[in-house]
Amino acid sequence: MRKIGKQEIEDIAIGAALLGTGGGGDPYVGKLMALQAVEENGPIELLSVEEINDKALVVPAGMMGAPTVMVEKIPSGNEAVETFKQMEETLGEKIEATLPFEAGGINSMLPLALAAKLKLPVIDVDGMGRAFPELQMTTFYLDGISSNPTVIGDEKGNTVLLNTINNVQAERIARVSTIQMGGSVMIAFYPMKGKNLKESGIKNILQLEEQIGKSIREAKNKDYNPIERILELTHGFKLFQGKVVDVDRRTETGFTRGSASIEGLETYQGRNLKLQFQNEHLLASVEDEILCTTPDLIAVLDEETGMPVTTEGLRYGARCIIIGIPCDTKWRTTKGIETCGPKYFGYDITYKPVEELIKERSF
Amino acid sequence: MRKIGKQEIEDIAIGAALLGTGGGGDPYVGKLMALQAVEENGPIELLSVEEINDKALVVPAGMMGAPTVMVEKIPSGNEAVETFKQMEETLGEKIEATLPFEAGGINSMLPLALAAKLKLPVIDVDGMGRAFPELQMTTFYLDGISSNPTVIGDEKGNTVLLNTINNVQAERIARVSTIQMGGSVMIAFYPMKGKNLKESGIKNILQLEEQIGKSIREAKNKDYNPIERILELTHGFKLFQGKVVDVDRRTETGFTRGSASIEGLETYQGRNLKLQFQNEHLLASVEDEILCTTPDLIAVLDEETGMPVTTEGLRYGARCIIIGIPCDTKWRTTKGIETCGPKYFGYDITYKPVEELIKERSF
Repeated sequence: MRKIGKQEIEDIAIGAALLGTGGGGDPYVGKLMALQAVEENGPIELLSVEEINDKALVVPAGMMGAPTVMVEKIPSGNEAVETFKQMEETLGEKIEATLPFEAGGINSMLPLALAAKLKLPVIDVDGMGRAFPELQMTTFYLDGISSNPTVIGDEKGNTVLLNTINNVQAERIARVSTIQMGGSVMIAFYPMKGKNLKESGIKNILQLEEQIGKSIREAKNKDYNPIERILELTHGFKLFQGKVVDVDRRTETGFTRGSASIEGLETYQGRNLKLQFQNEHLLASVEDEILCTTPDLIAVLDEETGMPVTTEGLRYGARCIIIGIPCDTKWRTTKGIETCGPKYFGYDITYKPVEELIKERSF
Repeated sequence: MRKIGKQEIEDIAIGAALLGTGGGGDPYVGKLMALQAVEENGPIELLSVEEINDKALVVPAGMMGAPTVMVEKIPSGNEAVETFKQMEETLGEKIEATLPFEAGGINSMLPLALAAKLKLPVIDVDGMGRAFPELQMTTFYLDGISSNPTVIGDEKGNTVLLNTINNVQAERIARVSTIQMGGSVMIAFYPMKGKNLKESGIKNILQLEEQIGKSIREAKNKDYNPIERILELTHGFKLFQGKVVDVDRRTETGFTRGSASIEGLETYQGRNLKLQFQNEHLLASVEDEILCTTPDLIAVLDEETGMPVTTEGLRYGARCIIIGIPCDTKWRTTKGIETCGPKYFGYDITYKPVEELIKERSF
């Protein structure tokens, strides 16, 4: 156990933006909520998953919907508390700790804010190791853990509790309810025992994010290259370097979809990288050559500072380095690939691990 | 208390089609479900509202969504049982009786089927005295009774439990969930005490429907005019007589919307009645003259047999008599008119009771 305060939150937020791979929601609003909660209630206890009792009830928390909406429709903070209250009433048991189901993006921050408010510990584990757009896209789902009951709540005080025959149904029904409830809600789901979490979660993910954030923050003063340090921490690969020459971004069925074109610089001169995204970056290719594809992570970093750039932040002329990071091995199983591989998102491509693609690359 | 069996169900179904005022769903599928449930479990206890203990928990039941979908996607019967189970678990109390929240149309029948299955009594009372398309359109809502919790369940086994800040929010969120769940679900909501039901419900509505159905059934053998008998039973008025010459019907945002044109016959010759509907008949007019408008009831009856005709059943050339029936006085309050008067449905008309309009009529 250790305590995390404001500096840790600042660092985690930067790492979370990177593992958000362009989507997942800018952690900014969530960070403000977490900082305020820590201001009011003191530092948060961060536990490693091994410190959790096998029989303890633990519940992942966060938001569902469009983070861009949440910026306009700031949560009251009570809706997350209310979802936990309903969860406890329904299960007839006390929740002993919370965790992010999605450590990439804004959902890294919201469990911290909730934990500070409820004086609960946060467990350093998540169910994605990155960001993904749908509720069933968790390692919990891969391991057969039910999302039941799913509880969502809005800032007005409406709550919806779902018990569904599978986690995909939960995603679909909660999604339309979320839209009706104004486009963003707080969610608590996948209640489980400590034992299940130990088997199914992706461990030490907040710590990784903190290390990433710290590397980027300290690089300027200590005069080292933050991107090399990030590649070490994440076991990632540099895919490309260049400047943004075209961005085509549109909002469709609740997703930010589109692509960006990045013109090669340095050793990549004369080549063009195409980056395709649906909230998150899903596919990086140069002409017909695939460099990296979901569920592996694709992050765009500012060439100078190493700061992660979201799809909203992609601007014409921006100089950037694109990196690929191997996803957790749980995503590389048949069910993992079916759940969030390229075919699920409509790309007619067979998944290959980024470390293999790097070896086969022609340039 | 009295027992109701197959003949009573047949008669109630006809009366329910009439009070469905063209919409509310053809009671046919519901009738089959009720008949089968009675076949398997024996007759159903029907109680007058006075026979219910003031402190007893009673819960209205029925379906939500498109009855036309339910014909294709037959309920398993278990989804209604499941909604009652969840309601009891959430409230921590046993349900002692059920009732239709909407006695017009198919929702007259579904509580009978559920009651037979659960061996619960049915109370002869509803919350509309007719059919209406939205969940908040009940006398319970007018009397400030919360719909919380609203529980909906589909035939696959998914359930959704809503706690909302008001009954209109329940309608909106449950509506989108229903569409996502395939277009029709079973619903239990407005849980209340016997005392509230006595104050707020519309009494003896199933008995009225049974009398209407019986009058229509027996008219042929006993050689009387069923329509005159219906007008007596409902305190209604003959508005028009004619034949259908045009029907414009379309499905929009989950509603059957449109209008029918009826060419006058007998004393109405030379005039044309326009009947406008959104699921239910909402407005009957001859040129600029309003004859009857929601929340008063407008029913189309077969000229010969007196059988009610739904908007789906309106066929070119059909000879019919249109009647207007005063709604329950609860609907004639300011909140009642706001909730389901003509303006709510988009008609720029001020409500006037049908009995006044009849007096002012120019022909």
